Amino acid sequence: MGSSTSVLKRLVVGRPFRSDQLHHELLPKRLALPIFASDPLSSVAYATQEIILVLALAGTAFLHLTPWIGLAVVVLLAVVVLSYRQVVQAYPSGGGSYEVASRNLGPSAGLVVAGALLVDYIMTVAVSVAAGVDNIISAAPELNPYRVLINLVFLAILAAVNLRGLRESGRAFAVPTYLFVVGVLVMILAGLGRAAVGHAPVAESAGWDIRPEHVGLSGLAVAFLALRAFSSGCTALTGAEAISNGVPAFRKPKGLNAARTMGAMGILAIVMFAGITVLALITHTRVAEDTCDLAGFPGDCTTQAQRTVIAQIAAAVFGGDHSIGFYYIQTTTALILILAANTAFNGFPLLGSILAQHRYLPRQLHTRGDRLTFSNGIIALAVIAGVLIYAFDASTTKLIQLYIIGVFTSFTLCQAGMVRHWNRALREVKDRAQRLRIQRGRVINAIGACFTGVVLVVVLATKFAGGAYLVVIAIPLLFLVMRGIRRHYQRVRQELEPDPAGDLLPSRIHALVLASTLHKPTQRALSFARAARPDTLTAITVNVDDTDTRELQRTWEEHRVKVPLKVLESPYREITRPLVTYIKNMRRESPRDVICVYIPEYVVGRWWENLLHNQSALRLKGRLLFEPGVMVTSVPWQLRSSAHRDLERADHLPGDVRRGIF
Amino acid sequence: MGSSTSVLKRLVVGRPFRSDQLHHELLPKRLALPIFASDPLSSVAYATQEIILVLALAGTAFLHLTPWIGLAVVVLLAVVVLSYRQVVQAYPSGGGSYEVASRNLGPSAGLVVAGALLVDYIMTVAVSVAAGVDNIISAAPELNPYRVLINLVFLAILAAVNLRGLRESGRAFAVPTYLFVVGVLVMILAGLGRAAVGHAPVAESAGWDIRPEHVGLSGLAVAFLALRAFSSGCTALTGAEAISNGVPAFRKPKGLNAARTMGAMGILAIVMFAGITVLALITHTRVAEDTCDLAGFPGDCTTQAQRTVIAQIAAAVFGGDHSIGFYYIQTTTALILILAANTAFNGFPLLGSILAQHRYLPRQLHTRGDRLTFSNGIIALAVIAGVLIYAFDASTTKLIQLYIIGVFTSFTLCQAGMVRHWNRALREVKDRAQRLRIQRGRVINAIGACFTGVVLVVVLATKFAGGAYLVVIAIPLLFLVMRGIRRHYQRVRQELEPDPAGDLLPSRIHALVLASTLHKPTQRALSFARAARPDTLTAITVNVDDTDTRELQRTWEEHRVKVPLKVLESPYREITRPLVTYIKNMRRESPRDVICVYIPEYVVGRWWENLLHNQSALRLKGRLLFEPGVMVTSVPWQLRSSAHRDLERADHLPGDVRRGIF
Repeated sequence: MGSSTSVLKRLVVGRPFRSDQLHHELLPKRLALPIFASDPLSSVAYATQEIILVLALAGTAFLHLTPWIGLAVVVLLAVVVLSYRQVVQAYPSGGGSYEVASRNLGPSAGLVVAGALLVDYIMTVAVSVAAGVDNIISAAPELNPYRVLINLVFLAILAAVNLRGLRESGRAFAVPTYLFVVGVLVMILAGLGRAAVGHAPVAESAGWDIRPEHVGLSGLAVAFLALRAFSSGCTALTGAEAISNGVPAFRKPKGLNAARTMGAMGILAIVMFAGITVLALITHTRVAEDTCDLAGFPGDCTTQAQRTVIAQIAAAVFGGDHSIGFYYIQTTTALILILAANTAFNGFPLLGSILAQHRYLPRQLHTRGDRLTFSNGIIALAVIAGVLIYAFDASTTKLIQLYIIGVFTSFTLCQAGMVRHWNRALREVKDRAQRLRIQRGRVINAIGACFTGVVLVVVLATKFAGGAYLVVIAIPLLFLVMRGIRRHYQRVRQELEPDPAGDLLPSRIHALVLASTLHKPTQRALSFARAARPDTLTAITVNVDDTDTRELQRTWEEHRVKVPLKVLESPYREITRPLVTYIKNMRRESPRDVICVYIPEYVVGRWWENLLHNQSALRLKGRLLFEPGVMVTSVPWQLRSSAHRDLERADHLPGDVRRGIF
Repeated sequence: MGSSTSVLKRLVVGRPFRSDQLHHELLPKRLALPIFASDPLSSVAYATQEIILVLALAGTAFLHLTPWIGLAVVVLLAVVVLSYRQVVQAYPSGGGSYEVASRNLGPSAGLVVAGALLVDYIMTVAVSVAAGVDNIISAAPELNPYRVLINLVFLAILAAVNLRGLRESGRAFAVPTYLFVVGVLVMILAGLGRAAVGHAPVAESAGWDIRPEHVGLSGLAVAFLALRAFSSGCTALTGAEAISNGVPAFRKPKGLNAARTMGAMGILAIVMFAGITVLALITHTRVAEDTCDLAGFPGDCTTQAQRTVIAQIAAAVFGGDHSIGFYYIQTTTALILILAANTAFNGFPLLGSILAQHRYLPRQLHTRGDRLTFSNGIIALAVIAGVLIYAFDASTTKLIQLYIIGVFTSFTLCQAGMVRHWNRALREVKDRAQRLRIQRGRVINAIGACFTGVVLVVVLATKFAGGAYLVVIAIPLLFLVMRGIRRHYQRVRQELEPDPAGDLLPSRIHALVLASTLHKPTQRALSFARAARPDTLTAITVNVDDTDTRELQRTWEEHRVKVPLKVLESPYREITRPLVTYIKNMRRESPRDVICVYIPEYVVGRWWENLLHNQSALRLKGRLLFEPGVMVTSVPWQLRSSAHRDLERADHLPGDVRRGIF
């Protein structure tokens, strides 16, 4: 099976390329945009809705605040995009916010960003899947009772395809993003056009009234409500830093191309978010956190769900919820959201690899070709996201509470780091034109840092009780764990500092061959050990069962084995302890010598066969490694079944495209 | 911690004894009886109740059948005990039914018995815990809503103490059994005495009527009902074969002592079962499967539970449910039932060890001192029993449906095997007195085989739909798995048959030392490899990162390492594949030589440290073992943290007392 699928894969995706050929395969901007922008662009699908949901808590009267809040979000989005254009040009290595914060604000700040980004990836998965399913249910309302289940199924599918090694193919993945963008732009144009000619589209919910949860708000309370709405709207910014992590995958000049793509993404995001918000106002779209607060909602408000804002707009603009336009928008929206979740499955190993390179995570995450650790990452990501989806009833609105803190933590630290970066540059650069450019950059990033910092405070204040406290716990926890890992590596590194004199050369080698019966593996171990010409060579067996031991001695003589067989008595029928005692005694007699223990091992092809073999050999080996001056040699004997193992597997890992590896 | 507990353990339980001192520590009959009989004697606590429950399905009218059915169970019990008295004398090695069936009816019959016994152990745990909790709830009815939970908690406690290595201490474990036996005998005497003087005790349920579920039964249906009641009553026999598995733990003459203990156990079981059944009739104790079928039951029949039969009798005899006698009976009953469940945790590894010796189960189960595999067995036993308890609502009545088939399968095959055993013996023995003795044994076992065989058919017919079909699936499944394991071992054995000429002596040894950086572990691996004086010696590194590789080459020269360093290019940043390719090429050039790969390994003390080290080394090693002509040598470097590992642990394993190991 293995070989036939890999042949098929080769036919479909072509031969893998070598690192030194990589520059032939870097992404043109028209592919880089959809690959990196599926995450930030998809968030316009739910940002407007989250603003309206919060304002609606005080009734329809406060919906008039929507345009102002939308405007604030647009300004913020523009600031963040401009700031990150600076980042990609200054740090084209793809470390993004993490690299900027570590280099300029010190490793601790970098580690906080890393923790925030890890939380981000989890929330990207959870929120995107939840929002995608919301839009599927908007098109097929009868699925509402199975909302959580559908979420978990999508999550499982995403995890499964990534475990199988989904190849993030630029071309195929570009299509849904473009389809979504075109669809939304056409919808905005059509809606505005209809409004211009006096036929303004009307949402199904336009006539519904909203029973306010908060009545008679004070001025301060209104301000707080507006801030809450604003921080919910900030979800439009999530994913904006994606391009800054993918710069190495761009064609040269990498920084400039990335900055241009960033600009295009920003313009698209602003146009789409503003357009959807304006259409929501024109069509009088109404949504409420609790469906039962909607006076006029047809059907049972306890079991049926409201349509998403984008679905209501699409239905209003394209002429009802059976129009082709409506289904087009819902399909592409769901598709781009699921795709956005997939980007987290790709970005997670990438970040892990960078953190591992800096020794904040286990080292094996750094090396490529290590499927197992990627698999663990994918499973961890899916399980945590699944638990969150389950715990928060797959509600996009509830999950978003957890999302924004991580995002704005990394925004703020990154922008602050950039300000420092420019300050440092100013000290070195004398050229006037360059100094002007640097000063301009510093102003942009300073504004970015202020804006995102204020938003972070606002988000913390307004979202804390709604679940954000979980993130406030998670990020420091991740920080401590990663710092602990790095300390461990450093301690070990000091302990292992090479000795200038080298290790003392042992004077003699004593070889012991473990034998339980005399069969081919034992015979091979004996002949390998003899070929190594040690100073002494003894075969050794532990007498657990008298009959077995006598049988071994008999065959030993019968086959005239040239190596003497020593029997260790084991009054308590154990294997490990008598051997360890014997070896300790040998070591005591000649401490400058080395003991080499040869263990015959079976090599089997099927996982369950391992349960039937090698268990005591493995445990014994694990114990022997604790003895100084002992080395353990495994002499494998390949059983016929070992041919069943598929040893060669074409390796494509998640995140390859983002690293510039095709 | 490890050493202080083991010191404490030594103080409490004394030093462990060596195998050759075992005869000093064998069990006298007065201790063997309670240790092996807790399982069979505890079943009298629920057997009578199960008979009444079935008869009550047809209303109170049919309860008059109870004495006849009880009599049939007593006769059967006597026959089985007499039969097993023959078994323990003929097969004193402790293999019990499994050994008898394998030796006389062939390995397949033995394997069926083994499967049945494995099912038995699971059901012993489930049924005993459920019945124990029934009796706790009879004394404290307010716990009824938490029935399943309490069951699972007891199960978890049993698993935990056995995982920690509960020492089955003869003396401590003997007490509850004797307390239970004495209590029940006193209760029977007191009850019969009161009846004799005209003050017959009256159960709380004596006045209740039972709404029959089956009305107007035909003669055939009545017969079927009686058969069902009889097969339910046969639960009194469960555990009867326990002594036959523990013969090695008896003092000499083992067979005779075991047979006498068997007889004492049988007499006790018959007296107790008969006494409880007679008292149930005298006190007019009523129980019904569905509490709501009891007209007169006080309280809410949907949430409250009936008292067990033994609890109702105790309350009636000792003057109410607040008398000391009542609490005594309930406490000792619950205690002996939990103890009976514990015996399964002891018996399971014992049976596993025998099956492993015969290569039906993974071989490591055979060797003592292997905590890990016992732990897996204990966890598996607890989990399966827990699932059954959960699935059957912790109902003793429902669980018992699954219990009896396994028990009677092994009874029948064992007795049939004994008949064959005697037939064979008769062919050889000429002495008249001995022939008479053998013929008597043959008659007893033939009767046993017929009786238990008929009961097996009855049980199959009457219990199949009630859940017994699960057992009918499980036993053949176990049979197939165990046969598969044995076939695998046999195939491997043939494949590994020693070569008369021995393995070909390789002409040369080429040593490769893996190096990623030059630190103490690498230095040690280099010096160990040099000490072994191979024909060629090369250090080898895979170039995953150019900077790291250049740094390695620099320090290599700086330290003037005498071994040449070879750099393998890895265009895809993998470690394993370039190495395997390199080694394959070496092998192709000189196929008669052996390659020895030295891998420096860190040895750490805490489990999580393993996650941070050695991962790629381990994976690489796993892959290299598949190459013929390659041996892999681990050169350990003990990090300071390796001293944290508790290497010596005093070993007491479940089942020790039953094996005659103190």
